[in-house]
Amino acid sequence: MPRLKHIGFVLFDDLTQLDFTGPLQVLNRIPGIKTHLVAGRAGPVRTDCGPFILADTSFADCPQLDLICVPGGWGVDAAMEDAATLDFLRQQALGAQFITSVCTGAFILGAAGLLEGRQATTHWRYHAALSRFGAEPVKARVVRDGNLFTGGGVTAGIDFALTILRELYGEALAQAVQLGLEYDPAPPVDAGSPDKAPGPVRDAVEARFAPRWDAFLEVVDRVTVKVDA
Amino acid sequence: MPRLKHIGFVLFDDLTQLDFTGPLQVLNRIPGIKTHLVAGRAGPVRTDCGPFILADTSFADCPQLDLICVPGGWGVDAAMEDAATLDFLRQQALGAQFITSVCTGAFILGAAGLLEGRQATTHWRYHAALSRFGAEPVKARVVRDGNLFTGGGVTAGIDFALTILRELYGEALAQAVQLGLEYDPAPPVDAGSPDKAPGPVRDAVEARFAPRWDAFLEVVDRVTVKVDA
Repeated sequence: MPRLKHIGFVLFDDLTQLDFTGPLQVLNRIPGIKTHLVAGRAGPVRTDCGPFILADTSFADCPQLDLICVPGGWGVDAAMEDAATLDFLRQQALGAQFITSVCTGAFILGAAGLLEGRQATTHWRYHAALSRFGAEPVKARVVRDGNLFTGGGVTAGIDFALTILRELYGEALAQAVQLGLEYDPAPPVDAGSPDKAPGPVRDAVEARFAPRWDAFLEVVDRVTVKVDA
Repeated sequence: MPRLKHIGFVLFDDLTQLDFTGPLQVLNRIPGIKTHLVAGRAGPVRTDCGPFILADTSFADCPQLDLICVPGGWGVDAAMEDAATLDFLRQQALGAQFITSVCTGAFILGAAGLLEGRQATTHWRYHAALSRFGAEPVKARVVRDGNLFTGGGVTAGIDFALTILRELYGEALAQAVQLGLEYDPAPPVDAGSPDKAPGPVRDAVEARFAPRWDAFLEVVDRVTVKVDA
């Protein structure tokens, strides 16, 4: 069993609030754990839901993390090109036991050069783009490749974190946390993946993502040139 | 279709972070919605995960909410006896279209006198205690009784919020939000309710709740006397 003491979530403006809150709520239940919300500087971070999150640790003040988790969101575009974020991740990755991401946070790991040759997953809409970072995209809600755990979009972070608990601490702790959080999902609709959603629903969701897609790929092009160089 | 413009989550120290973040992430996708995190005063609120949340609106500055959502957590004991919180809820309830809670947030509604004669649910461990507030406990992940929506423990908040979307805005919006959030749950363990969890797992979880149970009931006794009076 690993001895995880410090877990850090890497925050940046315009992240998706549930991307890190799901795993935070689950991983915070590891006995003796200390959780850090880390950003360039401590203080308020804007999410897609509002100005609601406080980073409590700056990159400079952050201890060596045993597990790093990078969430996703619209802010990933900027974060992929933020030198301080990438330097922090590369430095921390040298000493961390586990590197992880939820949703499009995988692309920030990619920009830091941490996905090369690794199996990984991300939000379904962005999945194929993982190969741009030398990763092998795997269609699964949670993917483990050695010390790299990646989760699918947003709510996948809960399954992702329970998988980490189960693999690192065993079935019983994962079950106990699941029961405590009453995680017995019963969605009132059944359209949680593009295969299940009706066509018009897919189109409506696509209309939210489409206007941002070209800009995202432009950033990917720029940062992958740097990774390759 | 209702015209919800202002949604407010009522925050208090030691709430459970995912209790309100699940619904926040879902309800924030209602077109044209303005979300408020409301507390006695604007500023940092401590959650069970750390000092990570910022209330952006004080009770005094909060506009009339169209939908109020009260999350749960260990801090419910104190919130049930906090006059400012209860006054805020009673006042807002006079003009709100919908009153809602997730997890043990139901007991704060109860303490404000808002559950009398209503069907409701809460976290499984606390479920039977709903009757102390004159509510009719219903074993379901989400319960609607007129303008009152209540959800089960913690993660039930996601199903709760999608149910609100479906009932108020129709199937298509609920599906689109579900797909955007990739809510296609696949827990790696299957112990999300007391019926499904192995005995030793139930015992381990019970051991977390048991030390707090008597104190909780003492508060319930005190505040129900006031409600009845």
